[in-house]
Amino acid sequence: MPSYKLSEIAARLGLQLELKSPEDDIVITGINTLEEAGPSELSFLANPKYASQLASTKAGAVIVKPDHKDEVARALVTDNPYPMFAQALTLFARPQGSFSGVSHMACVSPDAQLGEGCSVYPFCYVAPRAVLGKGCTIFPGCYIGEDCVLGDGCVLYPNVVLMAGTVLGNGCVIQPGAVLGAEGFGFARTGEGIKKVPQIGHVELGNKVEIGANAAIDRAALSTTLVGDGTCIDNLVQVGHNVRIGKDCLIVSQVGISGSTHVGDNVTMAGQAGVSGHLHIGSNSTIGPQAGVAKDIAEGQVVGGSPTVDYNTYLRNATLMPKLPELFKRVARLEKEMGHKPITVSKTDRSLVALWNRWLSVMHLR
Amino acid sequence: MPSYKLSEIAARLGLQLELKSPEDDIVITGINTLEEAGPSELSFLANPKYASQLASTKAGAVIVKPDHKDEVARALVTDNPYPMFAQALTLFARPQGSFSGVSHMACVSPDAQLGEGCSVYPFCYVAPRAVLGKGCTIFPGCYIGEDCVLGDGCVLYPNVVLMAGTVLGNGCVIQPGAVLGAEGFGFARTGEGIKKVPQIGHVELGNKVEIGANAAIDRAALSTTLVGDGTCIDNLVQVGHNVRIGKDCLIVSQVGISGSTHVGDNVTMAGQAGVSGHLHIGSNSTIGPQAGVAKDIAEGQVVGGSPTVDYNTYLRNATLMPKLPELFKRVARLEKEMGHKPITVSKTDRSLVALWNRWLSVMHLR
Amino acid sequence: MPSYKLSEIAARLGLQLELKSPEDDIVITGINTLEEAGPSELSFLANPKYASQLASTKAGAVIVKPDHKDEVARALVTDNPYPMFAQALTLFARPQGSFSGVSHMACVSPDAQLGEGCSVYPFCYVAPRAVLGKGCTIFPGCYIGEDCVLGDGCVLYPNVVLMAGTVLGNGCVIQPGAVLGAEGFGFARTGEGIKKVPQIGHVELGNKVEIGANAAIDRAALSTTLVGDGTCIDNLVQVGHNVRIGKDCLIVSQVGISGSTHVGDNVTMAGQAGVSGHLHIGSNSTIGPQAGVAKDIAEGQVVGGSPTVDYNTYLRNATLMPKLPELFKRVARLEKEMGHKPITVSKTDRSLVALWNRWLSVMHLR
Repeated sequence: MPSYKLSEIAARLGLQLELKSPEDDIVITGINTLEEAGPSELSFLANPKYASQLASTKAGAVIVKPDHKDEVARALVTDNPYPMFAQALTLFARPQGSFSGVSHMACVSPDAQLGEGCSVYPFCYVAPRAVLGKGCTIFPGCYIGEDCVLGDGCVLYPNVVLMAGTVLGNGCVIQPGAVLGAEGFGFARTGEGIKKVPQIGHVELGNKVEIGANAAIDRAALSTTLVGDGTCIDNLVQVGHNVRIGKDCLIVSQVGISGSTHVGDNVTMAGQAGVSGHLHIGSNSTIGPQAGVAKDIAEGQVVGGSPTVDYNTYLRNATLMPKLPELFKRVARLEKEMGHKPITVSKTDRSLVALWNRWLSVMHLR
Repeated sequence: MPSYKLSEIAARLGLQLELKSPEDDIVITGINTLEEAGPSELSFLANPKYASQLASTKAGAVIVKPDHKDEVARALVTDNPYPMFAQALTLFARPQGSFSGVSHMACVSPDAQLGEGCSVYPFCYVAPRAVLGKGCTIFPGCYIGEDCVLGDGCVLYPNVVLMAGTVLGNGCVIQPGAVLGAEGFGFARTGEGIKKVPQIGHVELGNKVEIGANAAIDRAALSTTLVGDGTCIDNLVQVGHNVRIGKDCLIVSQVGISGSTHVGDNVTMAGQAGVSGHLHIGSNSTIGPQAGVAKDIAEGQVVGGSPTVDYNTYLRNATLMPKLPELFKRVARLEKEMGHKPITVSKTDRSLVALWNRWLSVMHLR
Repeated sequence: MPSYKLSEIAARLGLQLELKSPEDDIVITGINTLEEAGPSELSFLANPKYASQLASTKAGAVIVKPDHKDEVARALVTDNPYPMFAQALTLFARPQGSFSGVSHMACVSPDAQLGEGCSVYPFCYVAPRAVLGKGCTIFPGCYIGEDCVLGDGCVLYPNVVLMAGTVLGNGCVIQPGAVLGAEGFGFARTGEGIKKVPQIGHVELGNKVEIGANAAIDRAALSTTLVGDGTCIDNLVQVGHNVRIGKDCLIVSQVGISGSTHVGDNVTMAGQAGVSGHLHIGSNSTIGPQAGVAKDIAEGQVVGGSPTVDYNTYLRNATLMPKLPELFKRVARLEKEMGHKPITVSKTDRSLVALWNRWLSVMHLR
């Protein structure tokens, strides 16, 4: 990682540097939290909740608001520490990759077009009629199929697969192992067994779309599976055929979205949520972790649970669920007082214990 | 994509062409839904529910039943529009890949056997004693380990991994990034820490099996992890060691099946369902989305929920869950009327709100 | 697979061989369960529950305790059959890979360092300043980024990606397609849309860590995402940025752990469980299948459900859930007897049926 003198960081970010002596202009080698930073690292205080950590931090210097500048050995002063910290991070970002040019160990079709300043690493395959914009970087092991179109400044990390006809806007970043444009799961049960329906569409990403590691975005049966500008999709997410996702959505890891569902703008889906097919998910809505969405979601709605209920009911149920066994007893007591015959609820099903042991996948060879 | 004159499509599919004038024999460049088709695209009406769309569609031509032939500008007439549409799709399917032969940039062991008409793209590795049937296509970045056997006409899309000893029947299609034959999760906790149990088995697929992108089918501890003829497995599915899946099953995205479970024929598992290990899942059964299966499932059973209950109970509970807070109040009221001391149920646990914010993985650096 | 005479197996494992005649020293070609073993295979009896299978097994020989030695044709006798069986497995383990040396079809930076006895297969990319210990094996299609450090005896199966700065201890095994060090999901919603926060940290694994196929371990925003010695992570698991996992944990397939959560030692997480971010999961705790963890978990705690409750409540609720519709009726009956106005609970929401059909992703083209 690179290193900088404090004064250089201050100059680059336009921050006011408060040092007690000129010897305090030390060399900074990284960035870390107040808790973990060492004497050659820079830290920051954005949330006043953590102000007490200023006393104990070992950080070499801290980005702070003016009113905290005297509480640290060396202060970089600003009214907005968080964005300044984020900018400082870019100074220290570990470079990924150091190759440039088009490797002779890559296989680039003479019928493909590469924009100015593209880098294609060894072991990449670029098929005929693929078109890459300016300044794209294609890491080792990537596959770019026929008729793919990439905008300017796209980055494909190692082992990314773009099947034929995939379209990327400008500035898209695809993490390692992601697969765009694999065949949608188009199988229909018929009297004569399962029939495969050819998937003749493609995948299209807007500008500045981010796709996570080992995610899978299937190509449309017909026309287009669409991901809008600025939307960020995390690792291991599944997006089915003909799904359309709007702008600036955050789709967290291991979410699954079934075929033909349309998602609006600014939607957030928490980890492991699942969305059924052919639904409309309104803009600005939020879908909780592990939620199972089986119905349309209105604009701005917040839902949780599987199947989903509204947020407040979800929270209330989460509070009540541990009381459910007691509720059964309370009702039985009332019934007894009313002279009803007792209703037996079977004992706890201990066969469920097996669930635990079995699912743990600890081997039980005989 | 290829293009065809309407008369050529009619001839190839054996459809009756109804045109108002010879100039109506236009060039068709693709297929789309009635809603989205443009004037050079073909569409179809299979479900009478959508018949009203015939009036507004911009499709250049439509595959319809005889009774609708006069409602569209250009009609391709058949008694069974859907299968004809599916067949028309194959005419327009975007070709994936355009290379043939065995690339000198691949690494094929001299001790491997390739059947007639196989294509092996650059950057593929085919290990000693691997045997490929006739007409297999191996896209870039695939690994075929020692002693693998592939039937005729198998397609491995880019970056597929077959570990040593994997067996594929005829006509199998493996989507990009899928891994077959990785080591099963064979770890046992012992007094001296975790012991790894060697996984000496392999994976075997029947004929016409489809495996989705980035799916993982582990090799058996002993003998065989089996997937039967015609079974289709979607993206990001996990199949544990020694699992045996029957014929014509549909296993939707992100399902996980734990080790040694046996699945019958014609089983459907919806997205994100999980199945515990060492279970028997009867033929023709259906497992709902996000279901958690902890017990054997009988033939033809339909189950949902986690842990699973029968389908009707699942649906009923889904209806009742939003009423659970009210039920607690109703019981409290009855108790009050019976002169009981009030039972306090704690307030909604607002710490769960944190679940939302935390799980959303929006960064909270201090 | 290799084969051995029975006497050779006995000698190698230090077992007592009991044969009825010298001709009984047959050649053994594999290992299998009592149920499935054939006449040239070795089996074992560890669990007395399966002793009755000794009568019917077709196994050529069986590893048994002394008191069972007369019940089988050919016995290998030991007081501890299970560990002996596990050791026997290693004799029959199918070799994965047969290449050695550094391939001229790999791309290894002259600035990388390879320890003695490393094998680097074709189509691997080893970036500048990467350092590999002794005896590492790097299968085809792997990417090892800048400044990565691998201990001795690490195995990277095909298509593994280690982004820049990833550190592995000794004896780590990474299954095919796993991605270590991809960018953490660091996106913050701001007034001006989503801002990406650079992820400048890295991933570090202890000794003898195992990572499953197509798993994703994200690099830290700052400092380190950590996986401790001996921890085993299964296929398709997601580990977020800045997560720290202790020693000897078992993390089963499709689990997701959100950013900055700290996990103790000897923790077990069952399949498809999800853990929210910024939590502490105590040592020796167990998290059930599909559980949703939204709060800290104490040392030794066992939890299930989403959101999680303690194990016994989880089991009790699992027993009671099928009785929930009945409970609603019971309360209604009591209310009627108390002279209350009936409270209508809506009919079962049949729109949920759509959940099934839709989620099944069976295609519904119009």
